[in-house]
Amino acid sequence: MTDEDSTTGPRTVSRRRLLGAAGVGGAAGIALGVGGYALADARSNSAATQGGSGSGRAALTSLGADAVPFHGTHQAGIVEPMQSTLHATAFDLTAGTGRPGLVSLMKRWSAAAGAMAEGRKPPGLTDDQVALDAGPSSLTVTFGFGASVFAKAGLTAQLPSQLAPLPPFPEDRLDRARCDGDLWVQVCADDPLVAYHAMRTLQRLAAGQAAPRWQMTGFSRAPGATPKPMTARNLMGQIDGTNNPKPGSSGFDTTVFVPGNATAAGQPSWMAGGSYAVFRRIRMLLDTWDQQSLDLQQRTVGRRKDNGAPLSGGPGSTETTTVDLDAFNSDGSLAIPGDAHIRVAAAASNQGAAMLRRGYSYHDGYRPDGAPDAGLLFIAFQADPMNGFVPVQRKLARGDALSRFLVHESSGLYAVPGGASAAGYVGQALLES
Amino acid sequence: MTDEDSTTGPRTVSRRRLLGAAGVGGAAGIALGVGGYALADARSNSAATQGGSGSGRAALTSLGADAVPFHGTHQAGIVEPMQSTLHATAFDLTAGTGRPGLVSLMKRWSAAAGAMAEGRKPPGLTDDQVALDAGPSSLTVTFGFGASVFAKAGLTAQLPSQLAPLPPFPEDRLDRARCDGDLWVQVCADDPLVAYHAMRTLQRLAAGQAAPRWQMTGFSRAPGATPKPMTARNLMGQIDGTNNPKPGSSGFDTTVFVPGNATAAGQPSWMAGGSYAVFRRIRMLLDTWDQQSLDLQQRTVGRRKDNGAPLSGGPGSTETTTVDLDAFNSDGSLAIPGDAHIRVAAAASNQGAAMLRRGYSYHDGYRPDGAPDAGLLFIAFQADPMNGFVPVQRKLARGDALSRFLVHESSGLYAVPGGASAAGYVGQALLES
Repeated sequence: MTDEDSTTGPRTVSRRRLLGAAGVGGAAGIALGVGGYALADARSNSAATQGGSGSGRAALTSLGADAVPFHGTHQAGIVEPMQSTLHATAFDLTAGTGRPGLVSLMKRWSAAAGAMAEGRKPPGLTDDQVALDAGPSSLTVTFGFGASVFAKAGLTAQLPSQLAPLPPFPEDRLDRARCDGDLWVQVCADDPLVAYHAMRTLQRLAAGQAAPRWQMTGFSRAPGATPKPMTARNLMGQIDGTNNPKPGSSGFDTTVFVPGNATAAGQPSWMAGGSYAVFRRIRMLLDTWDQQSLDLQQRTVGRRKDNGAPLSGGPGSTETTTVDLDAFNSDGSLAIPGDAHIRVAAAASNQGAAMLRRGYSYHDGYRPDGAPDAGLLFIAFQADPMNGFVPVQRKLARGDALSRFLVHESSGLYAVPGGASAAGYVGQALLES
Repeated sequence: MTDEDSTTGPRTVSRRRLLGAAGVGGAAGIALGVGGYALADARSNSAATQGGSGSGRAALTSLGADAVPFHGTHQAGIVEPMQSTLHATAFDLTAGTGRPGLVSLMKRWSAAAGAMAEGRKPPGLTDDQVALDAGPSSLTVTFGFGASVFAKAGLTAQLPSQLAPLPPFPEDRLDRARCDGDLWVQVCADDPLVAYHAMRTLQRLAAGQAAPRWQMTGFSRAPGATPKPMTARNLMGQIDGTNNPKPGSSGFDTTVFVPGNATAAGQPSWMAGGSYAVFRRIRMLLDTWDQQSLDLQQRTVGRRKDNGAPLSGGPGSTETTTVDLDAFNSDGSLAIPGDAHIRVAAAASNQGAAMLRRGYSYHDGYRPDGAPDAGLLFIAFQADPMNGFVPVQRKLARGDALSRFLVHESSGLYAVPGGASAAGYVGQALLES
């Protein structure tokens, strides 16, 4: 873990190194054109191709060409800007797979993910043409291990204490068939067909060794939908994620990633550079929410709905105005109510507990009562769930005004190992321990 | 129907007129920047905004600003290039709605669709902030009437004979709960949140008068995923839609749209400028398909998988090479096999029957056997299903090699009236007849 650049080949650039070189303050990551610094060139061509076969719409040629390196100190799909499409899938090992089968699977998966991240054909499949017309479209593939896989692979001695089951929370209405799983795969891309194809490829490569346990599809803003990049809105209409830790900011790495010297942090050595992913399907009671007044919605969250400014901000404040939990209105009431979501969730209210959220919206049709089956596929990465999701969610469950509009329908916790070198595979340090 | 430009306001340009002015040959449509011809300007800015709050990815600013006018001779969402996201929903009228309620609903829906197509807030909702940051992102909303709505609205005298139930086909394994419906709404946009929000808005505006019967979400290529615009691939990996009728080509309008003088064509007068939409959820047996050899896959379809060239084409042929159904291989066999999909589906094999396909892929997780619940949300528009989908599907069901890899799980047929003027609403000619 000491030399992050040893993992980069001639056609890729360490995303961490590039972040450093490009200046970090506030940038959540960066996507490269295939071949390195081709980004600006690819984008400057985007107005040139009006017309052409079968479409009168100009091609925005940069979207497909954008690439995120698969290899690195950390896995891809954590610190990078969110792509527009998510496929999250949990797999269970099939009987008899064991550790040798899991090693074989992680090698094949890593090789395929590395190839597809560069827009190349994954090895081992001969008929694979679905996505090759497009570039990688910022594809990232992120692998995690659920607690249940350790016993199946003879690795109970390596089970991190951080993978202890999440405690039950009052809003939980969990469908066990859509919880947990031996393996967790997060696929994100800016082209829906690329994302589907990557997930399908990984499923095919797992045949005989692991089978899907559950699968969920999510969406976020398409690049270019807003004139300037901005924090996305959730399906309640609120700008969501403003106070996410910023890559490069003080404490970011220790919040999100297990340090290189993992054992000193009370973690297994194989988790160096890794993280823990909490995945929750959180249905929003949108029919109820939409009946509330704008004022109540804003006091529930603690931010203005139109621009995301904190209610403590006063005139001219914006989404990025610092939240002042001690501000009062002229009538003596708290500017950000005592049960407002951003107060209860704030690190300042939770002994500094924090996590990097990377959630997607979902919409799976309508329920029998006509309400949307829709909400948030909550994804949060943290170095230790006991210093991240668990205390925050405990607090939210007790005192968050937002919680009465939410139902948690599934839950999973996964150990996301550090990234693989070009010669290695994800999970190697665990599986060869 | 004689002056299509009478429907256009100061901020929009008739998409038909623009098609004419821009030159039609082969262009499937065109998207406008809000405010008319701002397209090129918006796109030329797209490389300028690298960096910015919370994202290191350059904004492709044109995507959100692209707009497709809602008002016109025909409804939007038929001839325009496909967007990346589809929400298709069928609604049933609630008891007691009747014709007055349906009139009220279509007025509200049309007003909302017209506003959202221009990136404006839909009238009648006060708390609506989900999508306003983005432009319309090429949003189109297309409304259709199922046969069942005519009796409920006291309009049986206006029921077109063209809405007679589709005949059963051998591959049909129809789930009636996901078939048909009084009203059909096709929402398409290049931003997933804009598409979701539009569908949700229409559902909210229907409250008390119509409730969702079924809903399905589909995806296609994101603009810019491929270096040049090209026909999209389906989940089997095949380029799909090459021989679609081209807007502006000979016979296109008569294939797709009911003529302005509808009664002369044996159609009700209210269907002038309208079309009929066939919607089918067609699951692909992808595990079986993926086990076939490339050669068998290509002979099943009649085209090369890599570039879509017809098997009759020979060296150097491309997707657009004319299909030669009479070509033979050197061994005397047909170059395009007798049961190849493109032979059986060809207009030449069906007395000229043709339709405009606008299908989306779907992926709704995995089935209990581990196979993807995935395939094609087939959408086809035609002036008369008896000259379009029905004879072609009859032929396919008998002799198409592709059919053994497909299961038709739902089906609907809808009368899609002509477009509304800015002062009118979709279905006005029917509902005020």
